[in-house]
Amino acid sequence: MGAEQMNVIDLRSDTITHPTEAMRKAMSEAEVGDDVYGEDPSINLLEQRASEILGKEAGLLTASGTMSNLVAALTYCHRGDEIIMGDQAHMFWNESAGVSALAGAQVRLVPNDDQGKIDPADLSAAIRPRGNVHMPPTTLVCLENTHNRCSGAALTPQDTKAVADVAHEAGASVHMDGARIFNAAVALEVPPAELVKDVDDVSFCLSKALSCPVGSVLVGSEEFIGEARRWRKMIGGGMRQAGVLAAAGLVALETMIERLADDHANARRLAQGLADIEGLKVDPESIQTNIVIFEIEPSVGTAPEVLQALADAGVKVTPSRTQTLRMVTHRQVDSADVEEALSRVAGVVGKLREQNKA
Amino acid sequence: MGAEQMNVIDLRSDTITHPTEAMRKAMSEAEVGDDVYGEDPSINLLEQRASEILGKEAGLLTASGTMSNLVAALTYCHRGDEIIMGDQAHMFWNESAGVSALAGAQVRLVPNDDQGKIDPADLSAAIRPRGNVHMPPTTLVCLENTHNRCSGAALTPQDTKAVADVAHEAGASVHMDGARIFNAAVALEVPPAELVKDVDDVSFCLSKALSCPVGSVLVGSEEFIGEARRWRKMIGGGMRQAGVLAAAGLVALETMIERLADDHANARRLAQGLADIEGLKVDPESIQTNIVIFEIEPSVGTAPEVLQALADAGVKVTPSRTQTLRMVTHRQVDSADVEEALSRVAGVVGKLREQNKA
Amino acid sequence: MGAEQMNVIDLRSDTITHPTEAMRKAMSEAEVGDDVYGEDPSINLLEQRASEILGKEAGLLTASGTMSNLVAALTYCHRGDEIIMGDQAHMFWNESAGVSALAGAQVRLVPNDDQGKIDPADLSAAIRPRGNVHMPPTTLVCLENTHNRCSGAALTPQDTKAVADVAHEAGASVHMDGARIFNAAVALEVPPAELVKDVDDVSFCLSKALSCPVGSVLVGSEEFIGEARRWRKMIGGGMRQAGVLAAAGLVALETMIERLADDHANARRLAQGLADIEGLKVDPESIQTNIVIFEIEPSVGTAPEVLQALADAGVKVTPSRTQTLRMVTHRQVDSADVEEALSRVAGVVGKLREQNKA
Amino acid sequence: MGAEQMNVIDLRSDTITHPTEAMRKAMSEAEVGDDVYGEDPSINLLEQRASEILGKEAGLLTASGTMSNLVAALTYCHRGDEIIMGDQAHMFWNESAGVSALAGAQVRLVPNDDQGKIDPADLSAAIRPRGNVHMPPTTLVCLENTHNRCSGAALTPQDTKAVADVAHEAGASVHMDGARIFNAAVALEVPPAELVKDVDDVSFCLSKALSCPVGSVLVGSEEFIGEARRWRKMIGGGMRQAGVLAAAGLVALETMIERLADDHANARRLAQGLADIEGLKVDPESIQTNIVIFEIEPSVGTAPEVLQALADAGVKVTPSRTQTLRMVTHRQVDSADVEEALSRVAGVVGKLREQNKA
Repeated sequence: MGAEQMNVIDLRSDTITHPTEAMRKAMSEAEVGDDVYGEDPSINLLEQRASEILGKEAGLLTASGTMSNLVAALTYCHRGDEIIMGDQAHMFWNESAGVSALAGAQVRLVPNDDQGKIDPADLSAAIRPRGNVHMPPTTLVCLENTHNRCSGAALTPQDTKAVADVAHEAGASVHMDGARIFNAAVALEVPPAELVKDVDDVSFCLSKALSCPVGSVLVGSEEFIGEARRWRKMIGGGMRQAGVLAAAGLVALETMIERLADDHANARRLAQGLADIEGLKVDPESIQTNIVIFEIEPSVGTAPEVLQALADAGVKVTPSRTQTLRMVTHRQVDSADVEEALSRVAGVVGKLREQNKA
Repeated sequence: MGAEQMNVIDLRSDTITHPTEAMRKAMSEAEVGDDVYGEDPSINLLEQRASEILGKEAGLLTASGTMSNLVAALTYCHRGDEIIMGDQAHMFWNESAGVSALAGAQVRLVPNDDQGKIDPADLSAAIRPRGNVHMPPTTLVCLENTHNRCSGAALTPQDTKAVADVAHEAGASVHMDGARIFNAAVALEVPPAELVKDVDDVSFCLSKALSCPVGSVLVGSEEFIGEARRWRKMIGGGMRQAGVLAAAGLVALETMIERLADDHANARRLAQGLADIEGLKVDPESIQTNIVIFEIEPSVGTAPEVLQALADAGVKVTPSRTQTLRMVTHRQVDSADVEEALSRVAGVVGKLREQNKA
Repeated sequence: MGAEQMNVIDLRSDTITHPTEAMRKAMSEAEVGDDVYGEDPSINLLEQRASEILGKEAGLLTASGTMSNLVAALTYCHRGDEIIMGDQAHMFWNESAGVSALAGAQVRLVPNDDQGKIDPADLSAAIRPRGNVHMPPTTLVCLENTHNRCSGAALTPQDTKAVADVAHEAGASVHMDGARIFNAAVALEVPPAELVKDVDDVSFCLSKALSCPVGSVLVGSEEFIGEARRWRKMIGGGMRQAGVLAAAGLVALETMIERLADDHANARRLAQGLADIEGLKVDPESIQTNIVIFEIEPSVGTAPEVLQALADAGVKVTPSRTQTLRMVTHRQVDSADVEEALSRVAGVVGKLREQNKA
Repeated sequence: MGAEQMNVIDLRSDTITHPTEAMRKAMSEAEVGDDVYGEDPSINLLEQRASEILGKEAGLLTASGTMSNLVAALTYCHRGDEIIMGDQAHMFWNESAGVSALAGAQVRLVPNDDQGKIDPADLSAAIRPRGNVHMPPTTLVCLENTHNRCSGAALTPQDTKAVADVAHEAGASVHMDGARIFNAAVALEVPPAELVKDVDDVSFCLSKALSCPVGSVLVGSEEFIGEARRWRKMIGGGMRQAGVLAAAGLVALETMIERLADDHANARRLAQGLADIEGLKVDPESIQTNIVIFEIEPSVGTAPEVLQALADAGVKVTPSRTQTLRMVTHRQVDSADVEEALSRVAGVVGKLREQNKA
């Protein structure tokens, strides 16, 4: 049976999720207004709900997680500042260098451990002394929760507080890239507000695990959001009747969070299955949320070869670090799909190993 | 009767227009995919349709007109270049200085006449000689069609060619801020592609006169759009299942263009009525599209006073240059609303003049 | 006699002046140290003297006038701010667009009159309202004294105060590009400190009329200079034993200021002589300092043609605006040179007019 | 005996070196002209000599090493590019983040080994794939020779070629921060041109080990230097009669290079002496040029405590990484000073250890 006849199991990312019927209905009925004038009731409600859930004063709808993160950097940083983040941060790897290109900030990396954590001692050592003309002032520290390149690991409130305390002590602000913050909350069984109470602001995505078509929300203090509004406008993120998007976001906040536990169970099952396939390596115990990064032994082939072979077999995945691949579970993958994906992967890997032996 | 009981006639901008029922339906049924992977069929179709209509090779959906304009500047200009635009350009006045702040380009203004035109001789004189280390190279010239701050005046293909020829001769590209390019096409009875055939790219808005909730499209050469895609991603304009927005855009391109003639007739009627009110000044003959900017004689009061008095009487308008106000007609204002608005304005202005005499 | 045998009279700019013998001696004997550690006694003394003379708290040696102006912009402005300056400002025309390219500020021009003045009402109208996300905040206003492209016109303390009051009222700072501020002081017979008492900082050049080989000094408040020091370092203006340059600067401050009156007299005489030549136009009464900009009637030829013919005759000048040329008097041009230059110009212009008649 | 009566031995940096008598004489007699017009014969000669010695087509005088490095980055990189450099690079640590703040480039670090080398495999792994909108293109790789924070280690031509080949293969340029390139040439007994033949450009400092008061030279292709000239002007590095500085530079190139061997011998001796002091750690065999970085055992105290105690005893040093200090030998420190310094260090360290025991 050819791939074209198989149903493709798409594990590339939770960004591919389509809006639910309830979201489509909400979008088609959304009360809207011109948000540049502050008159879109759906957006206003979403911004209010998001800030309540996350325990911050105010919120701001943006077009994407990248936009939220960039707006935060533009708001906190003057050109010539230094931003410290983990060496696996999405903001460093996959956001087109916007914080340097547009905010004019130098990025300084400190190690992320396997669980996406930053050691407060590393942060402390990396913060620049003030008042030395040779050195950029450290004005921002960024955390990521859950951590994309660290297998979706979740930071606990304690992890976050330990880092944030060091940053604040040094006069730096703390931004959390919380694209998947609700995955963390569900996995850790901690209220979202608890997870972010020590950071100054947090961005989260409506369009990833929460299944919305478009959007991200940035929440923080009134003052921060007030300034962020100008930077959002400058980069073209001031949208008009985006209440149609916000309406889907409101549905997501009400109905899409609890179900993330299913994605997490599916990811854990996926990891277990992968660990059982000879030639692949992953520790199922380390999978906390919906991202599984697994290693490919040389006997199987290179990561791009395996990625292609899997695609041919109807399992779509993405490259990660060298010789690893990434699978992400989401609303459009159920437990049967997981079993079927594992079966296909086992077949592909088995065949590749045999070919390589020959 | 208090304003709260009146129906408010909102003439602030065509940006306030709500999606039509057909748009809402299209949004709720839109075929979508992940556009960052290039897999959203609705977006792909919209980008193709938009580029066909405007006679360019490729298109790119963005979140707003400001984003389209910024992406164009980021694509054409290196930091330290100079951009020439008219001295009434929206990009200079109302886009938060993004082209200098983020693209690092210096803006140089040449006069716009009352009809939003630039004199090719002025442009020619303003272009910098190359190879002088004291001077930024002129790499981009921006036109605006229709011209917001010039009462919605439309540039003819000849107007545009005259300027574009000078720019191209000097090695500069030409971007057209065509937020309301379809208003120009309808007013001049010229196919849109004809209007933009001499510029390198054009941005147009789905969310203004065309009534979509959100969005703008940038069209140009394959190469230009290919590079623009990276800059759009950097500023956070890479949206996921934005096919929901594109679906509305497709409805707009099919059903919302011809009806712009009604907005233009309403604007012309509005201007005639305003010209008949003592204390206001506007030349109705100059109104080509849907924007009316009228002058307030000192005997009536200051522009902010009149704006407030009109708002109290249920007619919302926006400030423009000193001692002028702006009214914009759009899908949600019909000819009866225009007559009612004129009657309210006449009342307000008459009362103010009497108060001032006393 | 060919140009190669003639002594060339170089009226291109006072930047061409060589160091005096006293300066060369001072440079060769200068006490120096490492200024990045703050240990160069000659620099420290120059910065102190300069700030005393100009009535400010502190000073900073830089490599050039352009560097001083850029450092000021970097210090005052956040990316995305707007700077207002005169439409003939050197900072706009001849400093490579650094304020937009590097400081990320948008430049907004208001008219300079023939005497380099800005009308306070124009400034007031150009200042942006705060708190509107569409608009860059106006945080800096720049004046130029004397004004290069306005025939070296000098701003009086009253001119400056009128503009500075409007700027300060609006919360903007005022930087004075005082490249030739001592020319203004001598021409107006006003102490330099009096000329700049209403601006927040001023840059002046050691290397132009004052004859030093290299350097400029920025003076302002302790806080401003403290911050400026970091920006100077970032752009590579932190020099080590630049006391060799400062030593020349100290000689200049002591011995080169009073003699500027000679340059001014020579410029006035030059203007009178030029006014007497048929085919050239200049108002000698308008020449206050050492810069003479004169117009060329079409009967003589184009400005580049005349520039070339003058160069062939041993008189070097620079282009200015269209159909004008600029002459600058300085220490290396005496009154005999002026008479000789006038005689050569008269010959060249007479010949060109005859050729054109024929 | 108090420090004030002792002669202070200043080992902070070779940047503190004063000009020699020959340099002072050359400066006082220098033939000069206006370099912005390209008319300074001393600068022209220096730029020519420097490019000959380093085997490149053209040269450019700048005000400092930081300026040369920044100009190189501005010339090669578009905003949004990525620059790869070693994780101990001076450009990352001590140049005020100018490449991100002003050139808009993201810095990506790869490990420097103890000898300042970069592993070509690390570089290869760090280069970004082109054509992915999420990622900045890698357009520049920077090397440092000798390597400041790696104890003045020298890169051989082979070291450089290995890295440059990887960079060029990937379409990236290679800039060498050769602030102390002549120290490398002397230490390795390799002609300077040989050391830099595989890089696209190199900056070197006149003001450090070569004892000039001010200046750096950037050398590269005609095209590169032509473009660099505009960026130098923009940041204010266009100086006028800087032939006074170039004249000292010419003396340095003729007379200051061979003597660097003495500084290296002194540094080696210093390292040997330090290694003999209980409580300090350094491998004398690793010292190739004029920089000695030594570790302080906890039994002696913290680095800042030791730095202060040494200063009190008349030996000035600088902090380096945590719990290390740096000494730099230079023209103003002879072998007797080295012995005296060692004796003072031994005394200080001995006393601190005893105090700590107590």
